[in-house]
Amino acid sequence: MARTNHFMALALDEARAAGQRGEVPIGAVVVFDNTVIARAGNRTRELNDVTAHAEIVAIRLASATLGQERLVDADLYVTLEPCTMCAAAISFARIRRLYYGAEDPKGGGIDNGVRFFAQATCHHSPEVYSGLAESDASDILKAFFQARRGE
Amino acid sequence: MARTNHFMALALDEARAAGQRGEVPIGAVVVFDNTVIARAGNRTRELNDVTAHAEIVAIRLASATLGQERLVDADLYVTLEPCTMCAAAISFARIRRLYYGAEDPKGGGIDNGVRFFAQATCHHSPEVYSGLAESDASDILKAFFQARRGE
Repeated sequence: MARTNHFMALALDEARAAGQRGEVPIGAVVVFDNTVIARAGNRTRELNDVTAHAEIVAIRLASATLGQERLVDADLYVTLEPCTMCAAAISFARIRRLYYGAEDPKGGGIDNGVRFFAQATCHHSPEVYSGLAESDASDILKAFFQARRGE
Repeated sequence: MARTNHFMALALDEARAAGQRGEVPIGAVVVFDNTVIARAGNRTRELNDVTAHAEIVAIRLASATLGQERLVDADLYVTLEPCTMCAAAISFARIRRLYYGAEDPKGGGIDNGVRFFAQATCHHSPEVYSGLAESDASDILKAFFQARRGE
């Protein structure tokens, strides 16, 4: 559990850094063989790219690092419940375990919304662990949106 | 309808070109103001990137071309029913109309599977037109998989 907390702490760092860049503060880390092989924050605004969610950026980096499309035996840590797009990308990448922080009832696709991993059109489901550093993850998001409303 | 057929023919060209590169032959075209602003085939193998579906590559190119994240008033033509990941990306990009060729009962996320555009966690739904050049789109895929099985 100590290492799990460590990796989620790195994802929270990525979330905070994203917020400082004016992005919705969500962070993700890919771990393979107990080593961080990719870490990323949300970059949709910077890149003008709706697909540049933290999870997608991290998965693409991890694949580039390993030189392979599929991240079998890799684990993904992300501060917020992944959306439907990211849920499917996680499945395609054959991620072994997904750890996420706060739930996202409005946009999540794992334990909310389409619950993609439970669908017949999902051909690989990772193990899912939720609620890690949940209050930190959700506080970062709340503070960001409060500050933005105040502007 | 003549222009619609023309844009789907370009998507079919992209699908065939993808197949010639050893990729699953799916192609996509983004049209804005009656002009093609992005065209792409599937590039997952070439890029070692599970997210490099034709639709995602085309949307990212179109956003880069227009210098904006959201493709309001843009239409997407794709040879196969988009998967769950691409369905969500299409929604995030605020695509106006989606035209697709063949249905994909095993992996589609529009009229099959999670039917993303009909879900409460989907916050923008394009108009959807299916069945355009359906037999061409599906013949290209069938020929590709038959050839691969024969190898």
